[in-house]
Amino acid sequence: MNNFQFYSPTEFVFGKDMENLAGKYVVKHGGTKVLLHYGQGSVIKSGVLDRVKKSLADAGVSYTELGGVMPNPRDTLVYEGIELCRSEKVDFILAVGGGSAIDSAKAIAMGVPYDGDFWDFYSTDKTIEKAVPVATVLTIAAAGSEGSGDTVITKENGGLKRGAGSDLLRPKFSILNPQLTCTLPAYQTACGATDIMAHVFERYITNTTEVEITDRLCEAVLLTMIKETPRVIADPNNYDARANIMWAGMVAHNNIVGVGREQDWNSHGIEHELSALYDCAHGAGLAVIMPAWMKFVCKHNVMRFAQMAVRVWGCQMNFENPEATAFEGIERFRHFLHEIGMPTNFNELGAKKEDIPALVEKFGLGNGKTGGFVSLSSDDITEIYNISAES
Amino acid sequence: MNNFQFYSPTEFVFGKDMENLAGKYVVKHGGTKVLLHYGQGSVIKSGVLDRVKKSLADAGVSYTELGGVMPNPRDTLVYEGIELCRSEKVDFILAVGGGSAIDSAKAIAMGVPYDGDFWDFYSTDKTIEKAVPVATVLTIAAAGSEGSGDTVITKENGGLKRGAGSDLLRPKFSILNPQLTCTLPAYQTACGATDIMAHVFERYITNTTEVEITDRLCEAVLLTMIKETPRVIADPNNYDARANIMWAGMVAHNNIVGVGREQDWNSHGIEHELSALYDCAHGAGLAVIMPAWMKFVCKHNVMRFAQMAVRVWGCQMNFENPEATAFEGIERFRHFLHEIGMPTNFNELGAKKEDIPALVEKFGLGNGKTGGFVSLSSDDITEIYNISAES
Repeated sequence: MNNFQFYSPTEFVFGKDMENLAGKYVVKHGGTKVLLHYGQGSVIKSGVLDRVKKSLADAGVSYTELGGVMPNPRDTLVYEGIELCRSEKVDFILAVGGGSAIDSAKAIAMGVPYDGDFWDFYSTDKTIEKAVPVATVLTIAAAGSEGSGDTVITKENGGLKRGAGSDLLRPKFSILNPQLTCTLPAYQTACGATDIMAHVFERYITNTTEVEITDRLCEAVLLTMIKETPRVIADPNNYDARANIMWAGMVAHNNIVGVGREQDWNSHGIEHELSALYDCAHGAGLAVIMPAWMKFVCKHNVMRFAQMAVRVWGCQMNFENPEATAFEGIERFRHFLHEIGMPTNFNELGAKKEDIPALVEKFGLGNGKTGGFVSLSSDDITEIYNISAES
Repeated sequence: MNNFQFYSPTEFVFGKDMENLAGKYVVKHGGTKVLLHYGQGSVIKSGVLDRVKKSLADAGVSYTELGGVMPNPRDTLVYEGIELCRSEKVDFILAVGGGSAIDSAKAIAMGVPYDGDFWDFYSTDKTIEKAVPVATVLTIAAAGSEGSGDTVITKENGGLKRGAGSDLLRPKFSILNPQLTCTLPAYQTACGATDIMAHVFERYITNTTEVEITDRLCEAVLLTMIKETPRVIADPNNYDARANIMWAGMVAHNNIVGVGREQDWNSHGIEHELSALYDCAHGAGLAVIMPAWMKFVCKHNVMRFAQMAVRVWGCQMNFENPEATAFEGIERFRHFLHEIGMPTNFNELGAKKEDIPALVEKFGLGNGKTGGFVSLSSDDITEIYNISAES
């Protein structure tokens, strides 16, 4: 196990009707003038935004609003948010929505007190030193942004999709009401589940040895997702299944399951080029990329994939041929994704094989290599896209 | 799943030599005058206290000292600590040691700003409203106090052992260096492992349904302990096994594995009377009580214990007789405890059957009942002590 630091100071408020406490928690965490940041109207239609506003008003907190966050949130709206916060003297940002609204809120939060261009934090190694406090009312179980210090933004001009992170961006509080996720269509629900599972796999597939506790915690989240996801696809109003998925989504990404070990986020990076180019859902892109990536890297450590196959997918260990077990696990994962309605190849996603050279170029490795479980060159990434295309 | 609030704002700093960063983290969390609180000399002998002192001095932090915390920490030293903190104007308490030093530090922390007797918080429902910030340098993996808001203190006069808790008592930071646990004797190591497992079982055995995520997280910690504990008993210097246990001990008790579900702390309560009367190690008392308690309550929900047997202890499910599987799981737990050197009955613990009426009286139920998975009367508790005595 490697040395690590772990700090997850977010106060989680979980359960039915909890969005009505938003105002109380803003006050508790010192907010006086709030930016309410949200997406394209589903939080208006569902009534949750009105309940949050009423709760703020009841708590004596004033607010201003900025809606319009799109999936794969854009830098353009972030600039608008930064200006608005400055002119309105906002001291607290409350995102109401899923990962896109939260990631956009975090970008605004780091941009407000910063003299330069907030994109510096996404495009260079520059360290975030100050941020306006952020909190969330979560409506989609997927990104884990409600418990993490991470954010991903897409630069509209050029379609670059890049991430940034800091403990300063960890939400002060996050309100998780599983009821709010019951109206999500099956496809979006499945995209969220895929993203949650990807967050775990990117920690699980590691070169670090002797990490039984985090291995087992990773497996705990995956086993939960394997049980609960088909239940909510079949019955969208199953509160308990929604609740288990919602908490699993937080646990998957606040890093409690990933400390002390090397992680490999290449799948996320390889996917980002797909959702940046085609504006597809991040989870759907991951469903296409992740099994292909697994197939490509599996032989690097067959026993790790065999462990996944046995402990997570319930395969019988083939002691005479562990590699067969390893590949069987990957195949079960692909089959699971297919069963919950995810695309598992380029065609189903709407991606085109002829775009692969452009995708690889945008990934931007040139003659370099990534880090990770297996260090990847541009040729390797081409091959992973090819496997994804042909699966 | 039930509604819940979860807040674990402790900054964890984990790994080799990390105690040398104590001073830096005290400064980061605003401490200027520290009370160093510790036990009976092992932290002096091992050199860790000197390293912490040097680190404080290097960071320009002044400190005063109070050693002498005993296992099953006493109220008498807490009163002394409160006076010392007031006279020395201490604004930060750093416990160096295991659960006893940390629990004692938390008691001092709540007592300093309180006008009345700190014991009020242990003996009544009084809410803790203020506390001096606490942090820890952990030397024993067991109590989980390094990540929890809980504390247990024994009143010297009368031997009452009682608990208190508040999010205000959650440590600001906790330094976890697994190296520091390598010098622990096998018996104490096993006591700590038993305590960690008990913290999980007291969350796992629940009447709340539809809690797959926390069930799986509980099982993750237990499976880790089952793998790693025999390894450190056989090889005390196995750093990686020590590291896995140390992080498992935190995860077991900061409540990430216990949210959204009823918990049952009766075993801990029943044990507390043993360690209060005989001054035995808490973990050793739990090894005697917990399997007996499980046997007594098992029939209330055979399938929950069958789940434990299959998922945690690797039993084959007996589909014609689930109760047989349930009891097989409990028997495997007892066998595991025996194998790691724990007592599993009164005789091995040094407890006496004739003391049972006195133990039950001190438990203090009278004609009342406890809450929990199964609500227990004084007669039930007598029966659990009887099973423990005769096992």
